[in-house]
Amino acid sequence: MFFSESDIEQLPKLKRVNLINSLTGFKSANLIGTVNNIGETNLSIISSVVHLGSHPPLIGYIQRPRAVARHTYENIVYRKKYTINAIRQDFIEQAHQTSARYPRNVSEFTETNISVQWLKNFEAPFVKESPIKIGLELQNIIPIPDNNTELVIGKIVQLYIPEEVLMPDGHLEIYNSGVVAIAGLDTYLKTEKIARYSYAKPGKKLTEI
Amino acid sequence: MFFSESDIEQLPKLKRVNLINSLTGFKSANLIGTVNNIGETNLSIISSVVHLGSHPPLIGYIQRPRAVARHTYENIVYRKKYTINAIRQDFIEQAHQTSARYPRNVSEFTETNISVQWLKNFEAPFVKESPIKIGLELQNIIPIPDNNTELVIGKIVQLYIPEEVLMPDGHLEIYNSGVVAIAGLDTYLKTEKIARYSYAKPGKKLTEI
Repeated sequence: MFFSESDIEQLPKLKRVNLINSLTGFKSANLIGTVNNIGETNLSIISSVVHLGSHPPLIGYIQRPRAVARHTYENIVYRKKYTINAIRQDFIEQAHQTSARYPRNVSEFTETNISVQWLKNFEAPFVKESPIKIGLELQNIIPIPDNNTELVIGKIVQLYIPEEVLMPDGHLEIYNSGVVAIAGLDTYLKTEKIARYSYAKPGKKLTEI
Repeated sequence: MFFSESDIEQLPKLKRVNLINSLTGFKSANLIGTVNNIGETNLSIISSVVHLGSHPPLIGYIQRPRAVARHTYENIVYRKKYTINAIRQDFIEQAHQTSARYPRNVSEFTETNISVQWLKNFEAPFVKESPIKIGLELQNIIPIPDNNTELVIGKIVQLYIPEEVLMPDGHLEIYNSGVVAIAGLDTYLKTEKIARYSYAKPGKKLTEI
């Protein structure tokens, strides 16, 4: 089935949003934890987290246009600290509910019964139920003029992971930790390993590792 | 298990690369198809594709530092056209092999037995075996000074999808099309739908759709 540029342009808005959000494949499912200038916590689901590099360890996410209030973004800019917490299968419904537009003084932690966890004096709240918790320090915010989004970049300064899925070579078997993936805007998936392959070289057959 | 900033800094390189690449959760598995100034095709696996917006329909990916030759990048800059093709389970090993560092005049299509497909006079090659094929026009390249990477932004100008996974509301059930996800650097996964939820609103219970 073929769509040209103008076919896409002419789709009804919701259909276009669903389709274009589905095209980029499976996405990570994370919650961003922050705290505002008067100590109120905020929690927000995000599927645009992207690995930027490992030395220094940098993670980015795409901030949607700030035409409406964006509590998470404001808190990150104010505090320079935030957390990224992987979503596990047993709290996907609660995690999805954080995308509702609550007033600034209402914490999504409270509204969705997700537990706040403060760890090692880090100045942003972690999600207690999450198996992979990352504490980040804001590094940079890069405007994307093409559609008024922004790339928000943080450096990993704290990391909490389940030891039982950490392999000796550093690979994390996150598919054995209950973490889910997202498809499109609103669909949650479990995953199962098919294969792990060796480093590819020209003329050399891959092996499974 | 806890890692501080300096714990991460002190990890052996390969262990740090594996660990940090594992943290951001499940990633999309795609192949980028391009053609160089003398008509030679190139194919490259990529896991950093990110949705930027649906109006206009923009897709980004993170270009790693260009200290070594980056044929895909050079071809995109030269031709302004490229394709993104979802990886299906039946060619993951071939797709992984495209990450080997072949000379410029060697096509990964040929080396890995992935089929070139030219469609509707689009000036970049598609992957015939891929169920979701996207033709893009280069829009912008945004430097990320924090680690010398770049955000490469393209606009969707052609789109080929399997009609049987397209829902009336535009959502694509890509989890029913054989498309895989990636974890870490080198691990391929199949997925299974757990639930699709309604649009979240404060005080309103989610329903499954």
